[in-house]
Order: sequence, then C-alpha cells, then structure tokens
Amino acid sequence: MGRVTERRRVLRVRDGRVDERPDTLTVEEPLEIRVAGRRLAVTMRTPGDDFALACGFLVAEGVVAAAGEVSRVVYCGGRDRSDPEAGNSYNVVDIALAPGVAPPAESLERRVTTTSACGICGRTELEAVRTTARYPLASGPRVGLDLLGALPDRVRAAQRVFERTGGLHAAGLFAGDGTLLDVREDVGRHNAVDKVVGRALQAGRLPLDGTVLLVSGRASFELVQKAVMAGIPVLAAVSAPSSLAVDLALETGLTLVGFLRGGSMNIYAGAERVVLPSG
Amino acid sequence: MGRVTERRRVLRVRDGRVDERPDTLTVEEPLEIRVAGRRLAVTMRTPGDDFALACGFLVAEGVVAAAGEVSRVVYCGGRDRSDPEAGNSYNVVDIALAPGVAPPAESLERRVTTTSACGICGRTELEAVRTTARYPLASGPRVGLDLLGALPDRVRAAQRVFERTGGLHAAGLFAGDGTLLDVREDVGRHNAVDKVVGRALQAGRLPLDGTVLLVSGRASFELVQKAVMAGIPVLAAVSAPSSLAVDLALETGLTLVGFLRGGSMNIYAGAERVVLPSG
Repeated sequence: MGRVTERRRVLRVRDGRVDERPDTLTVEEPLEIRVAGRRLAVTMRTPGDDFALACGFLVAEGVVAAAGEVSRVVYCGGRDRSDPEAGNSYNVVDIALAPGVAPPAESLERRVTTTSACGICGRTELEAVRTTARYPLASGPRVGLDLLGALPDRVRAAQRVFERTGGLHAAGLFAGDGTLLDVREDVGRHNAVDKVVGRALQAGRLPLDGTVLLVSGRASFELVQKAVMAGIPVLAAVSAPSSLAVDLALETGLTLVGFLRGGSMNIYAGAERVVLPSG
Repeated sequence: MGRVTERRRVLRVRDGRVDERPDTLTVEEPLEIRVAGRRLAVTMRTPGDDFALACGFLVAEGVVAAAGEVSRVVYCGGRDRSDPEAGNSYNVVDIALAPGVAPPAESLERRVTTTSACGICGRTELEAVRTTARYPLASGPRVGLDLLGALPDRVRAAQRVFERTGGLHAAGLFAGDGTLLDVREDVGRHNAVDKVVGRALQAGRLPLDGTVLLVSGRASFELVQKAVMAGIPVLAAVSAPSSLAVDLALETGLTLVGFLRGGSMNIYAGAERVVLPSG
C-alpha cells in the first residue's frame, strides 16, 4: 500500500532549541466496511491488511466465523463516473457473504443495538457475547510466567512502523509454546486485533485454539470480545483492564493478564491456563 | 455516581511470587446517547459526567454549539414495566434539543456517513469538519514552552482515579495563562474530551477561545475534530499524532503539539501560537 507512514514538516523542540525537520507519522484514514454493498461501519485505521481488518471485524460482530462464510472481498471503486476525480480511494471494502450466511442485523452499530428496553447495561453486553460466540474456549494452552513476560519485547521487536513513528498500537499472536504467529500494527488497538483475526480467518485457522494474544496498552471490553469471538483463550495486555473486560473474561472463561511488564503481571481471570510457581 | 472504580480479586505476580489480592479497576460501561428518544450512539465509557459526555458528543458532531440549544438532559428509565428488574441503569441519556435546533441527520454514525460516493477518504472528513465547525479558531492564546511542558504533570496531579487503577485517560483544559480549568478522566480518551467540552457547554462557555487542551496518549483525527468543534485553539498530546490529525489541524488553523514530555515537544501545526525562543 505504501501509505502506512507519511512525512510532515515539524518544529522540534529539545532543550529549549528549535529546529524544523521532516517527521514520520502514522497514517490514519477512514475505512468503510460494507457487506453486500450496505455500509456496516466506518473505522479510522492505518491502511494495509484492509481485507483482513474487514473480515476480522465481521468475526468480532458474530457475522462470520470461518473462511468459507466469506465468498469475496473487494475494494469498492469510485461510483460517480461523471466525476473524473472519483477514483478508487482504497478506503471502502465490500464483503460478499457465502450463500446461506445470514447478513448482519439491519441496525448493527454495536451488538447492544439489539437491546429494545431502556435498561442497557454491561450485563447486556456480556450476555450478547456469550450467546453469540461460536467457539467455546478450549482448555489449553498452559503458559508459564517466563513465556508471558517475554511477549511484550518480542512484539516490540517485530513492530516495523512503531519505532519510526511512536504512534502505533500492536497486536501479536503467539502459539502456546511462544512461537510468534503474526503481528499487526494500527493507530487503533481494536483494528490491529481485527487484522490479526481476519488474517487467521482468511488462512482457515479459526478458531485460534491454543494461542495467546498480546495487545499494547489497555484491555477494554471490546478487545476481550474480539479475542473470545475468534476462540483465542489467552489475552495479555501491557496495561490495565477495565472492569467490564474482566467481567467478560470471567463470563466466557478467557484468561486475562494485565500490567504485563518484565516478569510482573496481574492475572484477572482464567488463571488455570497459567503455570504458577509451586508453593 | 460511585461507579468510577470497582474491586476485583487478582493474582498478582511479582519477582516470581504470587499472591491474591483485591485490585481496583476502572469501570467501563456502555452509554447510549439518544436525541429526542432516538439512539444516536453507544460509547463504552467510565460512568460520571454522563450528561456532559452526551452534550460534548453532540458538540463534536455539530448538532449543538451553545447551552441554549439543549433544552433538557435526562437519564432514561427502564421501559419494560412488566419486568420488575428493569430499573434505571443510568446508562441511557436522552437529550431534548431546543425548539428550532435541527435534529441530527437520520443516519449519523459518523459524519462520513453523508458521503454518497464510494470514494471515502481522509479529504472527505477534513472538509466535513471545516464546513461544520461553528466557531472559527481565535488567533490567541500565545503560550510559552515552559507552560506547555508543565501541563502533563499538572493533569496527572489532578487525576484522582488514575493512580489507583492506572487505567484512565485524561483530558485537561487550561486557560492561556496556565490556569487549570477542568480535568476529566475516562477509559476512552475521546470520552474524556467530550466530558470537558460538555461541561463547558453546560456552563455557557463555548467557544473555548484562548484555551489549551491536553490529552494523555496519542492525538487522533477524532480528538482534533472535537477540539476544533469546541473552538479550542491549542491541542497538546503526550504521544504521537496521526497523519490525518496533523492534516486537520493545518486545515482548520489549530495548534497541534505532540510528544509533549518534559521540555521536549513537536509542533505539527499552528506554531504561531507558541512563543519560541528567539534566534
């Protein structure tokens, strides 16, 4: 794509001195995700792996769960043929579902949309994920503290854009023995996870039994949801989880690790998948 | 509200030792924002200042721009009277607009929604913000490097929840002379900004001429949009901006500072509001 980073002039201030120089920035552009020509969502993302992002988004929303349920993914070209400027922006992706796959609900913005009563609450969201998830989480893997503790540095080492811009979140997928399976970067943490999950879907590897997903930054409800929907049994975050993230992990049997820094970590749910020191 | 933090049991691993203890987590709950009874958006937020959050969201989306344009904000109680459990979750806010204020467009999920052509691109978003903004950004304030450099520590000192949970983003609003006007915290950076802007709207203080907004973390397109729509002329972020954030700042005349750490910073746009060392 060649649009992952862009250069801009910047005034750089260091120790009271100012100089003008080019700076490398992470590209942020809207991506419109359509299913059968109908807009489902717009996300601000870093271009690249757009088909995977769109597929991963549909996995998280419970629309598809296997490669065979997607029949075709294309960039949608400019429609307005009277305008010669209206080319393909590579910012609109259209997904055709396989025959027999139910299209997303009319008004899917978020799953909570389906709540008809006024009493929306976290409980509603927990139940929606639990009842929509297609893959029960497998009992494995069993991972040690050393393996977990090493993941953040390994993802950082695999991040190609971050070191140039400092502006990217990452999601890294590991096998239970610590083998790095995939790393994706994006301005949005949720997009990075969608890209990882979407690539796995495209490769026919869902559910992601036996894997560990590491995310930079915090663990929100949304990230736990995405892990659960893809069948990922262990989610580790470098920073804090929210209350609802922990509740959803407990509800679905996900192992949730937070504040993973060096050899330190907090285990919020699913500790049975972590090999703890005896005694 | 008493729901900003919650306690959960956690297994804490430090130096190979494991102990179980209570941990304080930031609460994350869905907030549904309705206008005249119709759902406009659902955001995952930390409870508190919900009316302000909803009002600030409407400012960012160009629906309202002054206190008089909002006639009433209420929590929407449970509807289903046959279900004794369906009480008020305090997670649905309904806003009544003042007579004569145009309701939001039918399908406002994001402003890009109004794009009819397929060629959605960052350009579309920039123009939408520029044409929707009600307040041209004022030429002031003029702020020095020392003042800017001190802002992150001052916001951190004012954050009440972060130190207990490590899980909250913050937005701090300052006058041009460095006086702290407001600080809000939330699991979502965008929500923290909406709360600050919404409180200002409710207090009749829009546009926020002459102010400086500091945000923890990165500066995305969305945060620049929110600053511009509230008339805030200077936005400073602790971490990196995206390309589209810089482009929107340049397009609208906003001063955008990134990587604000100690005395160091990068000025990406609107340097005329920053007092630089001579020579």
